[in-house]
Amino acid sequence: MSERGFELQAVDASTGARAGILYTAHGPVETPVFMPVGTRATVKAQTQEMLEQLDARLILANAYHLYLRPGHDVIGHLGGLHRFMSWDRAILTDSGGFQIYSLAPLRKLSEDGVDFQSHLDGSWHHLTPEKAIDIQVALGSDIVMVLDECQRYPAPRQAVEQTVALTTNWARRGKRRFEELDANGRQMLFGIMQGGTFVDLRRRSLEELLAIGFDGYAIGGLSVGEERAEMYDTVEAITPLMPEERPRYLMGVGTPLDVVECVARGVDMFDCVLPTRNARNGQVFTWGGPLNIKNAVWMRDSRPIDERCSCFVCRRYSRAYIRHLYVANEILSAILCTYHNLFFYLDIMRKMRQAIRLGTFSEVYTEFKACFQTKAEESTY
Amino acid sequence: MSERGFELQAVDASTGARAGILYTAHGPVETPVFMPVGTRATVKAQTQEMLEQLDARLILANAYHLYLRPGHDVIGHLGGLHRFMSWDRAILTDSGGFQIYSLAPLRKLSEDGVDFQSHLDGSWHHLTPEKAIDIQVALGSDIVMVLDECQRYPAPRQAVEQTVALTTNWARRGKRRFEELDANGRQMLFGIMQGGTFVDLRRRSLEELLAIGFDGYAIGGLSVGEERAEMYDTVEAITPLMPEERPRYLMGVGTPLDVVECVARGVDMFDCVLPTRNARNGQVFTWGGPLNIKNAVWMRDSRPIDERCSCFVCRRYSRAYIRHLYVANEILSAILCTYHNLFFYLDIMRKMRQAIRLGTFSEVYTEFKACFQTKAEESTY
Repeated sequence: MSERGFELQAVDASTGARAGILYTAHGPVETPVFMPVGTRATVKAQTQEMLEQLDARLILANAYHLYLRPGHDVIGHLGGLHRFMSWDRAILTDSGGFQIYSLAPLRKLSEDGVDFQSHLDGSWHHLTPEKAIDIQVALGSDIVMVLDECQRYPAPRQAVEQTVALTTNWARRGKRRFEELDANGRQMLFGIMQGGTFVDLRRRSLEELLAIGFDGYAIGGLSVGEERAEMYDTVEAITPLMPEERPRYLMGVGTPLDVVECVARGVDMFDCVLPTRNARNGQVFTWGGPLNIKNAVWMRDSRPIDERCSCFVCRRYSRAYIRHLYVANEILSAILCTYHNLFFYLDIMRKMRQAIRLGTFSEVYTEFKACFQTKAEESTY
Repeated sequence: MSERGFELQAVDASTGARAGILYTAHGPVETPVFMPVGTRATVKAQTQEMLEQLDARLILANAYHLYLRPGHDVIGHLGGLHRFMSWDRAILTDSGGFQIYSLAPLRKLSEDGVDFQSHLDGSWHHLTPEKAIDIQVALGSDIVMVLDECQRYPAPRQAVEQTVALTTNWARRGKRRFEELDANGRQMLFGIMQGGTFVDLRRRSLEELLAIGFDGYAIGGLSVGEERAEMYDTVEAITPLMPEERPRYLMGVGTPLDVVECVARGVDMFDCVLPTRNARNGQVFTWGGPLNIKNAVWMRDSRPIDERCSCFVCRRYSRAYIRHLYVANEILSAILCTYHNLFFYLDIMRKMRQAIRLGTFSEVYTEFKACFQTKAEESTY
């Protein structure tokens, strides 16, 4: 096995769920993996010590945000993102395509790239596929994402076709720049598929990316408003066409159920703000379904968030105490709820990885699906 | 030595600085001690694990805040404050006299007690010296403070005289209730001196409290706007009159310089929001003076907050990174700055305790004074 790259180790026969190891310049990462989101070089409300205690091996940061503040030049000057944030495990940086689409007050798309207004100060910036690579090479992330174009959902077929074409073109230019910078000694480059829920466009997008060749392939532009079933169907239709020997990353997904369903459909990598953002809003995940910690019913409840959870929060703090912290607007509420939620997600992944290796995934799949399906309907995802 | 109470172990000959041990139902506490402030049953932006790592042995919580939310009955139902917040080291609870004075939008003082409006929802409450004890007995704190009346500064002598008289009367009633509840098996009760900067009134207040008899004596109503020199003079005038065998607690004080100056004047216990509150505003303490972490000058500075500090924050994170976190309004900034500032304060105390025991306090005193004096003038305390 090479020093960098993906090693597929086990495939579940009945579903196609995969277990493997992604070798990065900052250590190996067992897949399927959920990446905690650290947009601005910090996983919100956690210290890096806590992330290590959680055994997170790969986190996500965002090139768009770090380009705007403090600037990739500043981070480059300080020795790159790993040194800047004092994190010597792996980092994937998203290029910012989705953030320009979702955050910039104004943007103007052209074949060359995208002009957008900063959501921080309204200043105008021009981002090209090449510059997106430059930024991420300066950051020194282990996994670099090409710049893609995101589409609103629903979008007419013709618009999605154009998005695919532009994204392919940008992917090609990104790859070229990446090779020019000779960054692939340390960094890996992933391409991003578009195509909405049009399966034939997804297929076209994938084929075009395969022709260029990447270290991994991401499914972008999902979980943007389509029905859950539609997302699962799209993933199910495309993963069998993706190369076995490359990691597959479903961007921005999702709920515990989504993650389980998509691991069962052959996805290896996930990221989502759900566990961290919802924690700050007082929603905590449990094996019995999500809880709203601010609910008055917990006022005198001395039980932990989840009696089946072994994280330090559940071993030490009660619902009553965390509810009090949340209601009093205390930072400790965000710290504890975030830690628990990340532990919960990483625990799901750990259990699935183990099951895939042991050949017992279908049982775990059935169990988890039942567990997350019923409860998800009652929740406020 | 008894299980509860204070053991004086060393007195610095040239200054009167004291080292001792305060034995509480939740472990011994070496003095002089600085108590991190955990108003609402949480030291803001810290986990209890972090407080343990800091080696904090005694923290402060506030009866006024916990009475209003979540309610001392709720905390009592859950087994008391220690269990509620999962903290099995010592806790001192302030009675709330100062908070009613500083936070309540409206209040009406009478001989019987004080009517005040909650700063949370405007509801009216009646607090008496007896009820202040009831609340703190329900909370189960190791050190209970009597209810006192606070005076604005400056206040005319006659008003301060009345405050002293009322505070003495309330202290007597508090002591009586404390004895009725037979809480002194586990808890200690401290009296609070008033008298502003009138030394004779301070003396009178102390004598009246001594006649009642308490486990410790607090100096209240200082650091409320008077000149720093006036505060030191008042402390210097009163501590020699305080009983040697009882702990002396200077409430709500202060800057690093204040703490050093007042240890030199024979004070054993301190609390102040400065290290925690200022941390959240981006002010961090160093042995070279305080820094404003948001300052643009730190943008590319890879040094730790304080190169002489051995806390986990200074061993791992740079000024540039923490500045970025602060500017981006990230919670991790508050977590890291608070930890560092508390470490800094506890480090000062540790070094002074050691020096008093070794008989080298006067050197440490001179060194610390020079260090904190010059810099304090440049800072924004």
